[in-house]
Amino acid sequence: MTAPLRVALLGCGTVGGAVLRLLDEQSDELAARIGRPVEVAGVAVRRPDRHPDVPPHLLTTDAHALVTREDVDLVVEVIGGIEPARTLLLAAFAAGKSVVSANKALLAEDGTVLHAAAAKADVDLYYEAAVTGAIPILRPLRESLAGDQLRRVVGIVNGTTNYILSRMAETGAGFAEALAEATELGYAEADPTADVDGFDAAAKAAILASLAFHSEVTAADVYREGISAVTAADVARAAEIGCTVKLLAICERVAAPDGAGESVAVRVHPAMIPTTHPLAAVGGAFNAVFVEAEAAGELMFYGQGAGGGPTASAVLGDLVAVARNRVAGVAGPGVTPYAGLPARPIAETPTRYHVSLDVADRPGVLATVAHEFARQGVSIATVRQDGHGDAATLVIVTHSAPDAALSATVAALRGMDVVRGVTSVLRVEGL
Amino acid sequence: MTAPLRVALLGCGTVGGAVLRLLDEQSDELAARIGRPVEVAGVAVRRPDRHPDVPPHLLTTDAHALVTREDVDLVVEVIGGIEPARTLLLAAFAAGKSVVSANKALLAEDGTVLHAAAAKADVDLYYEAAVTGAIPILRPLRESLAGDQLRRVVGIVNGTTNYILSRMAETGAGFAEALAEATELGYAEADPTADVDGFDAAAKAAILASLAFHSEVTAADVYREGISAVTAADVARAAEIGCTVKLLAICERVAAPDGAGESVAVRVHPAMIPTTHPLAAVGGAFNAVFVEAEAAGELMFYGQGAGGGPTASAVLGDLVAVARNRVAGVAGPGVTPYAGLPARPIAETPTRYHVSLDVADRPGVLATVAHEFARQGVSIATVRQDGHGDAATLVIVTHSAPDAALSATVAALRGMDVVRGVTSVLRVEGL
Repeated sequence: MTAPLRVALLGCGTVGGAVLRLLDEQSDELAARIGRPVEVAGVAVRRPDRHPDVPPHLLTTDAHALVTREDVDLVVEVIGGIEPARTLLLAAFAAGKSVVSANKALLAEDGTVLHAAAAKADVDLYYEAAVTGAIPILRPLRESLAGDQLRRVVGIVNGTTNYILSRMAETGAGFAEALAEATELGYAEADPTADVDGFDAAAKAAILASLAFHSEVTAADVYREGISAVTAADVARAAEIGCTVKLLAICERVAAPDGAGESVAVRVHPAMIPTTHPLAAVGGAFNAVFVEAEAAGELMFYGQGAGGGPTASAVLGDLVAVARNRVAGVAGPGVTPYAGLPARPIAETPTRYHVSLDVADRPGVLATVAHEFARQGVSIATVRQDGHGDAATLVIVTHSAPDAALSATVAALRGMDVVRGVTSVLRVEGL
Repeated sequence: MTAPLRVALLGCGTVGGAVLRLLDEQSDELAARIGRPVEVAGVAVRRPDRHPDVPPHLLTTDAHALVTREDVDLVVEVIGGIEPARTLLLAAFAAGKSVVSANKALLAEDGTVLHAAAAKADVDLYYEAAVTGAIPILRPLRESLAGDQLRRVVGIVNGTTNYILSRMAETGAGFAEALAEATELGYAEADPTADVDGFDAAAKAAILASLAFHSEVTAADVYREGISAVTAADVARAAEIGCTVKLLAICERVAAPDGAGESVAVRVHPAMIPTTHPLAAVGGAFNAVFVEAEAAGELMFYGQGAGGGPTASAVLGDLVAVARNRVAGVAGPGVTPYAGLPARPIAETPTRYHVSLDVADRPGVLATVAHEFARQGVSIATVRQDGHGDAATLVIVTHSAPDAALSATVAALRGMDVVRGVTSVLRVEGL
């Protein structure tokens, strides 16, 4: 064994603490797997007095000095957020250090710039922990599937919303009630906006799409719709057609509308999926990513998407890779947006809708409704009409059509005389 | 772009043909991902006249000359079997070529020797395609989870047997009937022994265990029981207790009975698992591997375990890794059995049993039966007794006990006066 590899840890919250613990507990194993022991060179935090478990001589408030120190080989960043993380990572690359990050917001905003900086410095940038915690998905996309063509990546990538939707399905509760329960049990944060409104999932979707399609996709390119508008009625309607409601992050390669090449459509929204789909069985706070590739066919990766232990496991897996590369004196395969596929707006992305209507039960109503779909160029896949008294419910599932045509149809239906109410509108996937 | 990387392909059956097709179709993508184009230097086959689709100048019957040729950079081996594959791989390593293999039998028998030879030559040996086709599991075990401690790896790793067991559950058919259907539909081979008797799964289990536990585990170390003895009654009994029957490959780290360190227990056998377990939903010919790690918690990897396309996708993923390493002038992380955990025999491995008995319905029978379990040191978890006339059925699920104690108990029950018949015996997992 030669001299130890020295790691700078930026941030020491739940994940950072778990990383320190694992580095200590697994030190012999890590040394065997890497070929050199790993040692913590320093831990940058804002308030050293809040970290009584960390040896005081390791603590520093000067993160910038730490990442550029000559005795530091590798940097682990678990502070999150855009700044100061971005500046620190760029400083680390400039100083020739490889970086392991768990920072989804930063990678979703600036992945291309960061990868270019890492490549220029001939060092590594890995961030498995940024998406679905311990589930190995970024490395398989970057490496295992590097010989294949990906078609779609569909993920349940946010545990909070999956917990809420699972509880709504199990108990018949509405969104507010299920959210309150999730908050009480610690599955939702006091301010649940990032989760519930799909921001967290959108950042992860951008990262997944960038890697899957070798293109630059940022969080701003992702169409985003959260789950706060999902009702108990939506969940009940889903069950009636053999579906369940999930918040999905969908990344797909689609042919351009004019036939001129391909583009990448990335969106986060609640959707009905058949209960027979492998993603439907992903319950509670679990995460999963479903992948469709040309040659490999359908794959799914499932596990715990959050928590100190699972996230730290992903960080350490990356750390071993980066450390091995450092020992070998090389950088691993980089990531470039060489395919350069443009992002496609949601309006032009083909989707399918489920629509439940309360209508007047009199002759010609179905014809009027059906005519509106046809007028917008939307083809209907299935219709179910149930009469009760002078009213009827109409449940329609469409074929695939540009999302703008579908939303325009729903808007038109809402304004129709014969339609007393639109009781549920949700996109449908995987039917 | 510099000079192309040149690949020698050994074998050109279903998988080899799919590899050639993908190398051709994806050549631009592969070049972008690797940094150099990839070119086929030659294809070694036994009967060149049987490969009209391959350009004749590439075909050769002299595999040994091909793998040692100076203009060959990388070797892809898809011939299968122990020899001549082993000799060819060793020759390739000695000549400084990295190897991608899909050969489970060879890796399960001689993985340690082959890895040592690759390490000595400072070249790569990857074989993702050898286990569960396109599902990335070996690379995640080798790399993504390299910072974690694995506890168990439980896989459905054979599509033929999973198809048969799924059909038995769906239709109530017996084994022979379901096998006949699988054969007719092409899910089972004319001679189904390797699949049905668990040899295929045992080889994969040995590979999984070796990588998961950094120890030498060969197919000979794997306890193996196939599915030909699984009856319609077993499947029905499983359903009654909320379970389904799967052929599982189970690799686990277990404490030695004397408390002196750990060992690795690896076994392949049919087992009842709860229908709520993620593996229970893996139907038809699909494969999945369920992983339990200290920090990461529970993970599952799911997908198509066989077929030309999926297997070729795995081969190409490895090929990209190996090619990138070649371009960088390095070898990837090697595999060594540094942990050196011994294999534990099935007799000493803790398992749980489900036992269904037909017994005489008279006083003292339950006491007699229960006494036999106690005498063997086996603790009973649940009992259900249903009387009908002068007979009764007794369904017992045990707690965990050494497998030898459980099988001895069943043997003793079979000899008991009050036991009219043992209608179903199966191990239980994941309850």
